[in-house]
Amino acid sequence: MVEYVGVHNMTRLIAAVGIEPFLIGLADYITADFVRWPEFDKMSRVASHSEDGVIELMPVSDDTLYGFKYVNGHPKNTKTGLQTVTAFGVLADVSTGYPLFLSEMTLSTALRTAVTSAVAARQLARRDSKTMAIIGLGAQSEFQALAFKALLGITALHVYDLDDDATQKFMNNLNGLGFDILIAKSADEAVIGADIITTVTADKQKAVILSDNMVGAGVHINAVGGDCPGKTELHRDILRRADVFVEFTAQTRIEGEIQQMGPDFAVTELWEVLTGARTGRVSDRQITLFDSVGFATEDFSMLRYLRDRVRGTDYCVEIDLLTKPADPRNLFGVLQSGQVAAR
Amino acid sequence: MVEYVGVHNMTRLIAAVGIEPFLIGLADYITADFVRWPEFDKMSRVASHSEDGVIELMPVSDDTLYGFKYVNGHPKNTKTGLQTVTAFGVLADVSTGYPLFLSEMTLSTALRTAVTSAVAARQLARRDSKTMAIIGLGAQSEFQALAFKALLGITALHVYDLDDDATQKFMNNLNGLGFDILIAKSADEAVIGADIITTVTADKQKAVILSDNMVGAGVHINAVGGDCPGKTELHRDILRRADVFVEFTAQTRIEGEIQQMGPDFAVTELWEVLTGARTGRVSDRQITLFDSVGFATEDFSMLRYLRDRVRGTDYCVEIDLLTKPADPRNLFGVLQSGQVAAR
Repeated sequence: MVEYVGVHNMTRLIAAVGIEPFLIGLADYITADFVRWPEFDKMSRVASHSEDGVIELMPVSDDTLYGFKYVNGHPKNTKTGLQTVTAFGVLADVSTGYPLFLSEMTLSTALRTAVTSAVAARQLARRDSKTMAIIGLGAQSEFQALAFKALLGITALHVYDLDDDATQKFMNNLNGLGFDILIAKSADEAVIGADIITTVTADKQKAVILSDNMVGAGVHINAVGGDCPGKTELHRDILRRADVFVEFTAQTRIEGEIQQMGPDFAVTELWEVLTGARTGRVSDRQITLFDSVGFATEDFSMLRYLRDRVRGTDYCVEIDLLTKPADPRNLFGVLQSGQVAAR
Repeated sequence: MVEYVGVHNMTRLIAAVGIEPFLIGLADYITADFVRWPEFDKMSRVASHSEDGVIELMPVSDDTLYGFKYVNGHPKNTKTGLQTVTAFGVLADVSTGYPLFLSEMTLSTALRTAVTSAVAARQLARRDSKTMAIIGLGAQSEFQALAFKALLGITALHVYDLDDDATQKFMNNLNGLGFDILIAKSADEAVIGADIITTVTADKQKAVILSDNMVGAGVHINAVGGDCPGKTELHRDILRRADVFVEFTAQTRIEGEIQQMGPDFAVTELWEVLTGARTGRVSDRQITLFDSVGFATEDFSMLRYLRDRVRGTDYCVEIDLLTKPADPRNLFGVLQSGQVAAR
């Protein structure tokens, strides 16, 4: 049988565990998988483009587990009340090829994205960081806030969004969760005094959410919103001043902020910092930038974590996705167990 | 919500419909999709190879639906009582990217493979065909027999397998289903008097299940077992005498019987025969050969058929694979519906 975690059990699980402990646990899995980065077979994603969007399959595997995520991106969905992105994922056993675990991944993608940002910031932001600016208060924003609170102890937020409804939603959602939040009137105001700047806007265009003069010495920038070709958030002058850290260089050159730079623009991969092979932050005046686009290993870590958490609990159910003939050569016998009559 | 058909509902559905009517209905969908072959975006499969086997994702789409199948191939699984192949599949809406339908596909793959063989034979075998030889009585054999009975009215079978247990399993499974079956002592004996020869053996090697002298004028060969590099069933001299029909030429040159021939060996694609663009059988003395390897459109047809059959019935259940926020920008609100506490 295949174990299944749907949206209902996912929300139950997080409610029971508490979202911050849940994120801290996830960070351990994401970190552990980044540290063993060379062990993964990192395959290309398969994209199917249509007029309205894209559907992608993102596989990755190590010696024992194979995982993939189905994910779509359809920007105009929100006009009809649908989500831009939905996702689900599967883990399978490499040695038998049997699928083991199926899970929702719309929430999971938001969770792993936020935790990856916080895992990177734990290495790259100044140790004395206390305040984070968040520019863009869409679907990902609360997850970012909670991951930085859980992993870095950040409770002071300066937030800004063009849309007052988005700001109100953000404030309502984080109400009572221990944050001290300043609602800024502009992005410029939001970044004043911020040790960490998270940009997580949604527009699919080359935008300049941060201009060069807004970024002072010592800041860590967590650039989350720019994540596909033609979608960036930072002025390129910032990239010149910053030390840039990425997940998987080849992918980030296409999808990340560094699509604005040449193919030999220097970057450091996050896993190298996590293993200690390369340095992260080296001075209090350095500007560090995590150019986040999301990578398949993070989904793999999320699936591993979730599977371990729900095993043996009632937060997952078994589904009959696979036949189980008593004799593997007798597949037809499975039909007869359903009392097939030839009419 | 996503509709789900698991193994239990699949067997219930087939029991209720009757397997032969089920296969006849499936043949309409498979034929309809072959006829509109140029409309499909036929992507490459993504294969992940390991020591013990392969895991593949096989996507395909048209203007409105996207489908993919997860399928593994692990030959040594049977030693531990597991199946060599398991599969599941998903249909999604191209315009929104939302997954719509999830189904088991281990049984479904067996069903669509058999029906595709019978759809081809309906075009390629002599109209007066009455007797079919089946060589190899493994997991696919009963499905082949029933598809040929349902679509071509074939009830006389000559069957052969090296393994008496396999033969006994086959006889037990088809007992009372309206066949007249001769158990042959050899493949040579099985083919005597057969109008159609189905080879569906399982060994992964270049075997010679049929040698040239065993194939008389007018016969249709349905070569199912040879379906990956290094696995063939027919002596190449047969290929020289036969007119060869394939699903997707580029794939069959790698995986099919014609991997034994040069890259310019002439073949006809089945969809061209089904549309009438090219001829199938032109004389009663001609040898026709369907070099079956299985193609993603057949899985797509199966998923479409199944979805249409179960819609509005209790043969499918809804699963909560997708979040459904009231406001698409408020994904975090989904978590709060599960009463998340920040601890």
